Amino acid sequence: MVEVIAFDGDDTLWHSESYFVLTQERFAELLAPYVEAERVAQGLLATERRNLDVFGYGVKGFTLSMIETAVAVTDGRVSVDEITTILGWGREMMRHPVELLEGVAETLEQLSRDHRLALVTKGDLFHQESKLAASGLGEIFEHVAIVTEKDPATYRRVVSTLGVEPASFLMVGNSPRSDIAPVLEIGGRAVHIPYHLTWALERAVLPPAHDPATDVWLLDDIRELPALLTDLT
Amino acid sequence: MVEVIAFDGDDTLWHSESYFVLTQERFAELLAPYVEAERVAQGLLATERRNLDVFGYGVKGFTLSMIETAVAVTDGRVSVDEITTILGWGREMMRHPVELLEGVAETLEQLSRDHRLALVTKGDLFHQESKLAASGLGEIFEHVAIVTEKDPATYRRVVSTLGVEPASFLMVGNSPRSDIAPVLEIGGRAVHIPYHLTWALERAVLPPAHDPATDVWLLDDIRELPALLTDLT
Repeated sequence: MVEVIAFDGDDTLWHSESYFVLTQERFAELLAPYVEAERVAQGLLATERRNLDVFGYGVKGFTLSMIETAVAVTDGRVSVDEITTILGWGREMMRHPVELLEGVAETLEQLSRDHRLALVTKGDLFHQESKLAASGLGEIFEHVAIVTEKDPATYRRVVSTLGVEPASFLMVGNSPRSDIAPVLEIGGRAVHIPYHLTWALERAVLPPAHDPATDVWLLDDIRELPALLTDLT
Repeated sequence: MVEVIAFDGDDTLWHSESYFVLTQERFAELLAPYVEAERVAQGLLATERRNLDVFGYGVKGFTLSMIETAVAVTDGRVSVDEITTILGWGREMMRHPVELLEGVAETLEQLSRDHRLALVTKGDLFHQESKLAASGLGEIFEHVAIVTEKDPATYRRVVSTLGVEPASFLMVGNSPRSDIAPVLEIGGRAVHIPYHLTWALERAVLPPAHDPATDVWLLDDIRELPALLTDLT
């Protein structure tokens, strides 16, 4: 029996990674006079990985990492004007309108009739709250958890707050590392709906799909969820 | 009867504003070859105020605001090296060890014997969680709320989560605007313990101290709290 269905936010309910990828493309173009795109991408990923423990996830840390990378990969030749351009992208990403993935609003509305819904989303508190408010979905969730890391301890806290057994908790998300693996580890169930883009630092090996022993399912689209839930209950 | 005592974190339990002020002094020194200190300070405050709606509170937004201000007040003459220096300060502030104010650990320990304790702190989720973990105080709080804004709605949510009446809720903090005024507004009680520094954007007019009609007290030091609580109960 699934009692609570919890959703990831970024790239599950609303677009996010596509703005990061777009900004990275503009970043590589900006630095093209100094250094080839491949080295820019590698440099940025290395900086982000190093800064994750200092800044955490989110647009502000990403913007600081871009500036740091721009200076490093150009050996300090990047101009102050170009740094201002990068700052502007950070602001733009923070203020970007929230675009729901197709089918999200009606699917959540349908699922809310028979299930308690929750949001478990990772990253910058200020930005995630802003996005939730702008999404129009705020009222549909009984519980919202904005967390710094989605590990088994986090999910144990969430199911405890909700007062359900892990076996009655189903997590829906696009990230194998954050939404699927830790939920299976605590004895919960998970639905993996891949986004067309996955950040390198979110990739992880998934257990085999459709294996009833592991309670994990792979869907192409959130609109397939209600049928799966009907099969499950 | 006070059932729950809630504490602000920054500048109530641990030092914070002093690092910001120190960094602002270094920032003014760095830009001294270009522009006088007074204009740097004014420029930074104006940028922070403008960026608050975009970035929220915290060190990462502050660092982005410093870079933006450095470019603006020098008319783009700041060097890339100097921008790298600013980036380094942001990283340093994020990793700064947590320094508790004097008397905090023993006072909280003493108060926890007869009261439920909570932490209500504002700002960057990642940084606040890191600071709480480093403070060694994590276990003493029954409830921790890290929030983006401390307004009456936030405090209503906190008292509801704790399952107490506002009149049984006492908030202790250094910021009139964030820790005192909104708590009084929802019918709670508040203890104002000023820090020796207050950020310009946190200043607000306080109701008169020691007025039993408004349930607000002014103390010099957290170590005076237990005696006040004894008087109250």
